[in-house]
Amino acid sequence: MPEADTAPAPFRRLAVVGLGLIGSSIARAARHYGAVETIVAIDRDATVLDRVRALGLADEVTDDLAAGVAQADLVILCVPVGAAGEVAKAMAGHLKPGAVVSDVGSVKVAVAAAVAPHLDPGIDFVPAHPVAGTEYSGPDAGFSTLFSGRWCILTPLPEGEPEAVARVQAFWETIGAIVECMTPEHHDLVLAITSHVPHLIAYNIVGTAADLEEVTQSEVIKFSAGGFRDFTRIAASDPTMWRDVFLANKDAVLEMLGRFNEDLSALQRAIRWGDGDALHALFTRTRAIRRGIVAVGQETAEPDFGRGRTREPDPS
Amino acid sequence: MPEADTAPAPFRRLAVVGLGLIGSSIARAARHYGAVETIVAIDRDATVLDRVRALGLADEVTDDLAAGVAQADLVILCVPVGAAGEVAKAMAGHLKPGAVVSDVGSVKVAVAAAVAPHLDPGIDFVPAHPVAGTEYSGPDAGFSTLFSGRWCILTPLPEGEPEAVARVQAFWETIGAIVECMTPEHHDLVLAITSHVPHLIAYNIVGTAADLEEVTQSEVIKFSAGGFRDFTRIAASDPTMWRDVFLANKDAVLEMLGRFNEDLSALQRAIRWGDGDALHALFTRTRAIRRGIVAVGQETAEPDFGRGRTREPDPS
Repeated sequence: MPEADTAPAPFRRLAVVGLGLIGSSIARAARHYGAVETIVAIDRDATVLDRVRALGLADEVTDDLAAGVAQADLVILCVPVGAAGEVAKAMAGHLKPGAVVSDVGSVKVAVAAAVAPHLDPGIDFVPAHPVAGTEYSGPDAGFSTLFSGRWCILTPLPEGEPEAVARVQAFWETIGAIVECMTPEHHDLVLAITSHVPHLIAYNIVGTAADLEEVTQSEVIKFSAGGFRDFTRIAASDPTMWRDVFLANKDAVLEMLGRFNEDLSALQRAIRWGDGDALHALFTRTRAIRRGIVAVGQETAEPDFGRGRTREPDPS
Repeated sequence: MPEADTAPAPFRRLAVVGLGLIGSSIARAARHYGAVETIVAIDRDATVLDRVRALGLADEVTDDLAAGVAQADLVILCVPVGAAGEVAKAMAGHLKPGAVVSDVGSVKVAVAAAVAPHLDPGIDFVPAHPVAGTEYSGPDAGFSTLFSGRWCILTPLPEGEPEAVARVQAFWETIGAIVECMTPEHHDLVLAITSHVPHLIAYNIVGTAADLEEVTQSEVIKFSAGGFRDFTRIAASDPTMWRDVFLANKDAVLEMLGRFNEDLSALQRAIRWGDGDALHALFTRTRAIRRGIVAVGQETAEPDFGRGRTREPDPS
């Protein structure tokens, strides 16, 4: 059975550090899909741990990082990217030889630089980023199918063990994700335009609307169906996570923001000068990108965006 | 029966000019809710008229504007705002005395200025704007519950007949909308921030992403789940309609865009200087607005945004 011989060995004991939306979804998905034998939930917040226990998301629940990761085969850091280095430092020396450490951060260059130096030789670090989420936070917000059909990007380090990468890839595929590998630098550029700048812009316009004197907040809220409400959904995402993303991916975000601003100036000028042809040309071109997204299956053509499927009964 | 005495007289014969997403939804809703006795569909595009016939959306279907509006009690212009004046001019003199003309334009000052001068005395013009829509266009995209629980803003002219306003209000309420009145000037400011600038920004960032050299279009499409895909949905809206909106509401859009740009510069500076507190403060504040929108019922807290309900079986 050549396939069985070459298949990467699954992880037996998984430790999830940080049980927010992503961490709790990984715990739920790992159990739902039978990806591991034992799940350890680690969080320093007692309220979070109480919810994790009440929801029955893990086999072991602890606020003791060193003890929690001690016997783990795979440790996934699900903390804001600004906290990843600190957590790595605190668990250094407590990991067992051959353990694999991964993460879920939306920024990869800065996280790799913060985490890797703390890990002993013999510990493999495979940075990962599941491109999935909702605007909700905390252990109650997670669900086992969050990663289903979504991309998970791995950004293996040059010195990384290919076998560890293959095992992490197999873990993500088991819980439903589609895996792609790229360099950390390229990841940070791609995500700057597909995620970080869109979030920044959404936060910004919601703030602008809140400060208007001529238009009341109540009016903004009432008439948000005109397009604004999609921005408020994005701008309701976790503030700490996003603060860390912008600080950690500063260069790529400022680069993409610069391009966005140049393009917006041109559009502003077209409006001021009544250049309807320029506006129409851009608006026609952007339709094609939407069609591409629907075609590639990251979205459906249904008005509910395919979001309805996230509400299937969650077995965990 | 005092209520029957004071209730505004319903319209018997409705003419819808322009059978796109909004016009076809009005036709479907008017029939579904029994708002009128007879529906006339008028469009200059033969392909659209063929679809209207095939879908059975109206009692009479014609490309002859003058004949179509001749006996109507209520004429609703559902054309791009840049075309409203031209249509009003073409139907002037063909309307019957006492007829009421309305529209659905996303801009009210410019439309009122373009339409009103063409209407004879004895014809009432009641500008309206249903704040509802999807990113789809054309007669197949409409559905009868599009306006259900959504706001419809009326911007009566100073010389407008209160009785005509009351009848138009009753029409919209019959097809499920909630009606609010305001001045055309205030409408244009409110919609500039809740709809027009959000659309402009969405179009802009989708264009920026399409032009990148370092990140391929295929990558943008694949990893859009990080936030970008919500912008692509908005940026897939009808190009002609939106070109006209920006040209017709130039002053309010440029005013709101100026504020947006000032705020974005401050945010850009906070990122450049690593001011995490400023970022966190803004990101926390914007969450409250989202909660307001969910609380007021223009949105639900469900991950599908309440969009699922637009897929209920359409009886028309």
